[in-house]
Amino acid sequence: MSDFRFPARVQKLRERIAKDDLDALFLSNDENRRYISGFVSSAGYLFVTQDEAVICTDFRYTELAAQQAPGWRVDRIGNKPDWLPKLVNEFEIKTLGFEADDMTVGTLERFKKALKEGDADPELKPTTGIGVGLRAYKDPEELELLQRAIDIGDRAFEETVSQLVAGMTEKEAAWIFEKAVRELGAESISFDTIVAAGPNAARPHHATSDTPLAEGQTIVFDCGARYQGYCSDLTRTVVLGEADDEMKRVYDIVLTAQLAAISMVEAGMTGEECDAIARKIITEAGHENEFGHSLGHGLGLEVHENPGVGPNAKGKLENGMPFTIEPGIYIPGWGGVRIEDVVVLEDGKARVLSHAAKMKF
Amino acid sequence: MSDFRFPARVQKLRERIAKDDLDALFLSNDENRRYISGFVSSAGYLFVTQDEAVICTDFRYTELAAQQAPGWRVDRIGNKPDWLPKLVNEFEIKTLGFEADDMTVGTLERFKKALKEGDADPELKPTTGIGVGLRAYKDPEELELLQRAIDIGDRAFEETVSQLVAGMTEKEAAWIFEKAVRELGAESISFDTIVAAGPNAARPHHATSDTPLAEGQTIVFDCGARYQGYCSDLTRTVVLGEADDEMKRVYDIVLTAQLAAISMVEAGMTGEECDAIARKIITEAGHENEFGHSLGHGLGLEVHENPGVGPNAKGKLENGMPFTIEPGIYIPGWGGVRIEDVVVLEDGKARVLSHAAKMKF
Repeated sequence: MSDFRFPARVQKLRERIAKDDLDALFLSNDENRRYISGFVSSAGYLFVTQDEAVICTDFRYTELAAQQAPGWRVDRIGNKPDWLPKLVNEFEIKTLGFEADDMTVGTLERFKKALKEGDADPELKPTTGIGVGLRAYKDPEELELLQRAIDIGDRAFEETVSQLVAGMTEKEAAWIFEKAVRELGAESISFDTIVAAGPNAARPHHATSDTPLAEGQTIVFDCGARYQGYCSDLTRTVVLGEADDEMKRVYDIVLTAQLAAISMVEAGMTGEECDAIARKIITEAGHENEFGHSLGHGLGLEVHENPGVGPNAKGKLENGMPFTIEPGIYIPGWGGVRIEDVVVLEDGKARVLSHAAKMKF
Repeated sequence: MSDFRFPARVQKLRERIAKDDLDALFLSNDENRRYISGFVSSAGYLFVTQDEAVICTDFRYTELAAQQAPGWRVDRIGNKPDWLPKLVNEFEIKTLGFEADDMTVGTLERFKKALKEGDADPELKPTTGIGVGLRAYKDPEELELLQRAIDIGDRAFEETVSQLVAGMTEKEAAWIFEKAVRELGAESISFDTIVAAGPNAARPHHATSDTPLAEGQTIVFDCGARYQGYCSDLTRTVVLGEADDEMKRVYDIVLTAQLAAISMVEAGMTGEECDAIARKIITEAGHENEFGHSLGHGLGLEVHENPGVGPNAKGKLENGMPFTIEPGIYIPGWGGVRIEDVVVLEDGKARVLSHAAKMKF
């Protein structure tokens, strides 16, 4: 048992399995599989009981699974789901949990049919949020990898910004960032880089285009690096040449809202309460309807994960959870401003992990 | 109606909706949404009846949806699924299909609850394969984009191979390819580039590592480019310096199997029958247990999509379908060989779309 690469994670999973009255939990989500076992792949399942820990994967990955996940039994499976009833019968499972937020309706039907055909009849219990719930809290090893991803993203962004000139296209600017991320040692970007210039910046999720950058407009740069699986996420708004008074005014509101949320968020608040700190400032400045997304989100092996940080996020923000704080104001036809840092809650307060320079007026 | 960007695709979808006795189909899959409507995003739904075509998406994407998908009504939705009962009631839907191979068990439960709370009570019918079924056939516009992705991938691979030297790591080699892909105009790679040198090549899905390339070993290079959403996929096996007799022997078996499948595959065959052409040659050469994956797969907006081309693929290969042909032999401790081209069936036979040079002995 102590052979596991992440024994504490397996232990916490087993505590949840016991708490939920399951004999076994059967995980299908790629990131949860990686998090619990250390095995990185695009296909496979974990089957975990209080005493057993099995990776089920196909021919392509069995050798890798054995290398990456010491302590786990590795079963080679084929396309047919007949291995599930076999495991259920081997371990005499009466109550089997599955990941309802990952498994499709079609896949569940195929497993149900296979269980029936394989003379296995466990009670199937949908579970939600077990894997992602555990993953919201980062252990020191994870925080180190996340910090590394953030540092690479910060530096790549600063290198990029120093090279921006009017006439360069959004796509060219994004590519400067993406090259820098790789040259600095990240395995990849963590999501499609957003560069949104002028009116394009009015769309929070603008698809980076061939629009040229121009002086005297806001340019929103939303970008991230992935390092050993961990995702960074950074947004800065910059202006080439002179910002006009309206840009300064809007930017100042967003920055004030962001800094207020960072300094006032506390462990034990809900995501909704954290969101409200920034939203109140933007609302009072008259831009209530121009901040149409959540204040932030957790991040880790996925760029969006628990905890939620938005108007309907009822879950609590706790020590050990990293998340983004990224208010914005978007004005159709004019453009937009968004500023985003990653913070982690420690000793009840937010410590900022992002260090890329912010524009100041 | 004629305003649609892809009227023929909407028409075919409506034919399937009628054939399946549905009043409406409700699509959740990202690529299907893009394919049918032209709207590119990571969130949203299509709701299609014989007379109506609605995109449901959130604040971030409504402006983009209206731009990219003329002819579609765009409804702005929030996090709550209360919009589904509203649409069901507005259009008086009695039978509502959903994508069982895309929608998770948890999401379906939330929609069921919302329908109940919204006083809507349609019969919910799981459908499988409607969107991906349509997408297996490529129209000329798609084949042009696919060819463009393939041409970029081919050229980037050839540029890379000309720069390979002993001592360079797998990751460095992959990065040369990835830079070239972008400089040649692709938006990104289409999947994580695999460079597998020596014994690493015994794993068909090796995770590209810091292993240095050496002379006198097989190096498997599996790589692709994405161009306007369309994914190329190319595998070549190369040797730095001299190949020994065993390498030549194994390479020759794989190449013979690949060329045989390309020349003998015919429209109307099943994916299984196509697979069997290559598998028979590898089996007769004594390597039956060392070719543990399918011969190929369809590709398009996803790098793996319909049709299936493998031992259990019962569907027919038809004119207009592109797919890969990629036999391999993998010998633990020694290495592996895989050779992959993309073909499209036209007038009953395969036309090869990949043009990157192959090693010859």
